Amino acid sequence: MSTVRNPGSELAAKSVDRPSVNSAVDSSTNPGKSPATLRLALIGHGRMAREVERLAPHRGFDIRVILTSASNVDGAAIHAEAFRDVDVCIDFTNGAAVAPNIRRIAVVGTPIVVGTTGWNAQLGEVRGIVTQSGIGFVYGANFSLGVQVLTQLVRAATEKFAELKLFSPYLIETHHQFKKDAPSGTALELARQAAPWIEPAALPITSVRAGHFPGTHEFGWDAEAETLTLQHTSRSRQAFAEGALYAARWIAARKGFFHFSEILNFQEES
Amino acid sequence: MSTVRNPGSELAAKSVDRPSVNSAVDSSTNPGKSPATLRLALIGHGRMAREVERLAPHRGFDIRVILTSASNVDGAAIHAEAFRDVDVCIDFTNGAAVAPNIRRIAVVGTPIVVGTTGWNAQLGEVRGIVTQSGIGFVYGANFSLGVQVLTQLVRAATEKFAELKLFSPYLIETHHQFKKDAPSGTALELARQAAPWIEPAALPITSVRAGHFPGTHEFGWDAEAETLTLQHTSRSRQAFAEGALYAARWIAARKGFFHFSEILNFQEES
Amino acid sequence: MSTVRNPGSELAAKSVDRPSVNSAVDSSTNPGKSPATLRLALIGHGRMAREVERLAPHRGFDIRVILTSASNVDGAAIHAEAFRDVDVCIDFTNGAAVAPNIRRIAVVGTPIVVGTTGWNAQLGEVRGIVTQSGIGFVYGANFSLGVQVLTQLVRAATEKFAELKLFSPYLIETHHQFKKDAPSGTALELARQAAPWIEPAALPITSVRAGHFPGTHEFGWDAEAETLTLQHTSRSRQAFAEGALYAARWIAARKGFFHFSEILNFQEES
Amino acid sequence: MSTVRNPGSELAAKSVDRPSVNSAVDSSTNPGKSPATLRLALIGHGRMAREVERLAPHRGFDIRVILTSASNVDGAAIHAEAFRDVDVCIDFTNGAAVAPNIRRIAVVGTPIVVGTTGWNAQLGEVRGIVTQSGIGFVYGANFSLGVQVLTQLVRAATEKFAELKLFSPYLIETHHQFKKDAPSGTALELARQAAPWIEPAALPITSVRAGHFPGTHEFGWDAEAETLTLQHTSRSRQAFAEGALYAARWIAARKGFFHFSEILNFQEES
Repeated sequence: MSTVRNPGSELAAKSVDRPSVNSAVDSSTNPGKSPATLRLALIGHGRMAREVERLAPHRGFDIRVILTSASNVDGAAIHAEAFRDVDVCIDFTNGAAVAPNIRRIAVVGTPIVVGTTGWNAQLGEVRGIVTQSGIGFVYGANFSLGVQVLTQLVRAATEKFAELKLFSPYLIETHHQFKKDAPSGTALELARQAAPWIEPAALPITSVRAGHFPGTHEFGWDAEAETLTLQHTSRSRQAFAEGALYAARWIAARKGFFHFSEILNFQEES
Repeated sequence: MSTVRNPGSELAAKSVDRPSVNSAVDSSTNPGKSPATLRLALIGHGRMAREVERLAPHRGFDIRVILTSASNVDGAAIHAEAFRDVDVCIDFTNGAAVAPNIRRIAVVGTPIVVGTTGWNAQLGEVRGIVTQSGIGFVYGANFSLGVQVLTQLVRAATEKFAELKLFSPYLIETHHQFKKDAPSGTALELARQAAPWIEPAALPITSVRAGHFPGTHEFGWDAEAETLTLQHTSRSRQAFAEGALYAARWIAARKGFFHFSEILNFQEES
Repeated sequence: MSTVRNPGSELAAKSVDRPSVNSAVDSSTNPGKSPATLRLALIGHGRMAREVERLAPHRGFDIRVILTSASNVDGAAIHAEAFRDVDVCIDFTNGAAVAPNIRRIAVVGTPIVVGTTGWNAQLGEVRGIVTQSGIGFVYGANFSLGVQVLTQLVRAATEKFAELKLFSPYLIETHHQFKKDAPSGTALELARQAAPWIEPAALPITSVRAGHFPGTHEFGWDAEAETLTLQHTSRSRQAFAEGALYAARWIAARKGFFHFSEILNFQEES
Repeated sequence: MSTVRNPGSELAAKSVDRPSVNSAVDSSTNPGKSPATLRLALIGHGRMAREVERLAPHRGFDIRVILTSASNVDGAAIHAEAFRDVDVCIDFTNGAAVAPNIRRIAVVGTPIVVGTTGWNAQLGEVRGIVTQSGIGFVYGANFSLGVQVLTQLVRAATEKFAELKLFSPYLIETHHQFKKDAPSGTALELARQAAPWIEPAALPITSVRAGHFPGTHEFGWDAEAETLTLQHTSRSRQAFAEGALYAARWIAARKGFFHFSEILNFQEES
């Protein structure tokens, strides 16, 4: 894990007045004590970034740099001097900004988590930059830890149910009335996980658009007399901020190009 | 009552070497795809046995023998003549009747599924009889197929969540107001599956006793902003009859002593 | 309430061997003791009628007559002699059979519950026959008692939420994959109940067709930080048989033309 | 801290004579439909007060004064000069602080919403002060609007089910593992609403303490074949802040002593 070069922080006191969050810091890597504080840079300062900003002090992060779209045109604010005291950074910007930001961060050498979506066309280019520079890099479209576990369980469950023809699978996802795409990207990913055992035509997917629901996904199997469901419910976007911070701590001392789904239950090779 | 119905039909099913994926199909609507019909004996004729009786014709079984507690004292009605045209039998009697029944069925040589509970003290004796005689034998306390999948998924999920300290596990089971024991046996089994990763004190188990609920088990993990649940709901005792018939078809052409949990996703050794 | 002219019944013993149902007989009209046994005729003998047949003995009914489509062409089997010992009857036939049956039952004078659907075109004619003859008559499209309460609560709740613009209403109904119409008739009725306070465009209705679900209706209101739901779930068609028997007891000593929704919380005029 | 921000804006809202149906609208996106802006004082600055502070600008409130426990000992910071530009205030302090605060606010004459609990012993005294001074006053233990509707619906539903003995009522409430009391105050209030029709012994109440659940209450009725539930779920404490702001707008132009439960569907006497 990255050492913390300057554990004293003038920003730590900022957490005093914030909406409380339980400091349920994952101490699995430091049993019995708090994890080392990591110094964080936020690239982008929209809704998700502000949620990360609110949560970070409760998860053992010290925010040292915040770059906005105005202050960081073409990644101009990313340079060695500004990132001198930064252990890891998180990018929640927009699709067009990702490649320029990565070009700069690769030079600086700071590990980075990218939660921004909409840059699939640059995926190959970004991967090349990351691999060549040797930085640590994690990206994903849904940073909820619970959704990642759900995805893995759907795969395991689908395989188990493949032999049990008494059960019919289904998928329901519920989001607020303002969400435009349907099914959700996460629902489509769950269907992909099930595809080796369930033909698309055999998996009815229902999208509910109603109220203000942050996001619920239910993958179920229903027989004549019983039902089994795997369900994930988000209460707020804090769920995504948690995952981004989890990934930031994970990548802080690693190198390589990772999808978020790879980092859960990751077994270090010996 | 001990009736032997239509003894003329042939034993076509012994050649079936694994549970057919068509076993769910109501053979009246898909005659061309039906699995081979198996000739079934019911030992005991209480609630569960009558539910098996109702369901069996829809699952490709032909009931040839029904033994009641009155007609089968000490297993007296189990003999070669009566079971001549029986491929497999299902025992839903009472704990005291199991060992005597098994002693007789071992002589007759018919594969058997035991759904009766309350004979744990005779488990060793019964296992000995089964092994020596070489009959096929499946037993279990909860014959719901969905509960078996749930049990396996709880194990997989608990392992995945072990590293994610942001999530707290819990277990809720709901049954009708007349159920006397709490937590349910299935809830205790789920807790046992989780035990390698969750200390008992860290797993709150809540039992709801209300209304007429046939049985619901929810194993969940809740973080500050998201919840993941694995939930199984029974709508009626048909769920248990389905599993007993599934096990009957599975054991019909096998030998050996099996727990119901072993037969799902069973991989035949080559 | 109708007196029972012949309380002894040769059919009562038939219940001994049936799947058990708790005898949770509604004794509200006879506090502290079982209600009087009513002698019942079943007109029609399809799925729903057979479910009524199974349940009736557990609800204080003695089945005296069962008419099938073969035995009752054009209502020919409905005559005074056959219905001499019948207190009330239940019709689960098909739309075309209802008017002919009512013409005959009006002559016989037996109160009747009609659970059959598909005779809307004859509603006026049937009402005329009922009114003229003075028999008791109850009809409805969904005989679940819980759905009736749900319908009334949706009305009350919608009115309360009319002022609370922070909440957005929605409606989700879930039925088995074989149900062809969507939304369900019950969902449309719930929307009608809400119509005085919610414009149709403001009420998203989602139909889930999956598995074998007997029927779930959820009417909810979701705000940014909270959700309120009214939900009804059927576990089996017993729910409809219960309501039909409830209606049969209710109409047994009454006269007049009633919709099932009118009989809950009915206040007798003094 | 006691800040007075931008004292120049006028008290436009006194003419508002009922809660505006547009109060839910984020005024930044619908400027033409916004309700009149109200100038708000926060008395207390703990968790709930900070949530009100976050939400208030989105609900048409302008925060002018924030008093902390340090700045407002014995209500010392509540005086005419400080509250000159305040239309309404919200108190989230502690039980001991309520009576002193009310004594001062009664002199200043500002309408007030009290979300603080733990001052039941002073209820009579506070009511006297309010009545004598003629200020507007709303108090309550649970400011969730959804819970208020739930409470009213439980009453209506319980009455309807009183005749339907096939259904058994139950109550389940779920809160985070850190909540010490059980059942929750809201669950007890729901049971009180049901008391005229359900004896306490006939209403099983189950408390689930697990994870981080902000609060779920389910009042259900279960029969052998169907279930009806009324369920309220909070996703965050924003639900309580919404209700406090709703009450603040409601009381801003009224006089009198009100419980929060009285203000929903309030019918102005003509």
